[in-house]
Amino acid sequence: MSEFVPVTLDVDMATIRAYADLTDDFNPIHLDPEFAARTPMGGIIAHGTMSMCLLYQMLERNLGPEATAALDLDVRFLRPVREGETLTAGGGARAGASGEFDVWVRGPDGTERLAGTARVGEEAAS
Amino acid sequence: MSEFVPVTLDVDMATIRAYADLTDDFNPIHLDPEFAARTPMGGIIAHGTMSMCLLYQMLERNLGPEATAALDLDVRFLRPVREGETLTAGGGARAGASGEFDVWVRGPDGTERLAGTARVGEEAAS
Repeated sequence: MSEFVPVTLDVDMATIRAYADLTDDFNPIHLDPEFAARTPMGGIIAHGTMSMCLLYQMLERNLGPEATAALDLDVRFLRPVREGETLTAGGGARAGASGEFDVWVRGPDGTERLAGTARVGEEAAS
Repeated sequence: MSEFVPVTLDVDMATIRAYADLTDDFNPIHLDPEFAARTPMGGIIAHGTMSMCLLYQMLERNLGPEATAALDLDVRFLRPVREGETLTAGGGARAGASGEFDVWVRGPDGTERLAGTARVGEEAAS
């Protein structure tokens, strides 16, 4: 499998606040440590969009903006992302499947937080 | 079909620059009108992440952050988003399919720019 060059992101409170501003999402699960501690999540979790954006950024860096402009993305959010974690987005071509890629976002412990498949080109348009 | 409350976003250069900063993606197709005019796109296009984020924001507003923390999202980028357009993200429950939703992001002309399916809950985990 041909591997993508991975892209990383430090999930600190400054990044979380920037995502809150940009996506107009000020849910206290993302911003208020005391509120978040009392939820089933047990603490602050990053916006899901952060993992999505990192994945898309990795794909655009590796494939170029014209390929990602006609992308078919099938991904599953598997585990929450915590404040203070460093995320890595990566993946690579699937053997024998032209234009099809395994993609993932992993935490510092190696567990997948987001994973799935990306398809580009003619295959995606059919 | 039970409909989601839609969410809108004005795609102006300030928003495009904010996405460039946040996703560390300064490709001139997104930022340089003269460069972008000479590409097959024929002008500036918004970061794909912008439609993704708007869609996720709409889902989180309608379903809550705990549902979207375990989301299965299968979406296709259909047409580019231009500077100056207003995007609307929406969708709704699929009849007869519990936890399954049609989702879309449309431009001001009503054409879909991003569309697909979101699944939440037990169905997504199986």
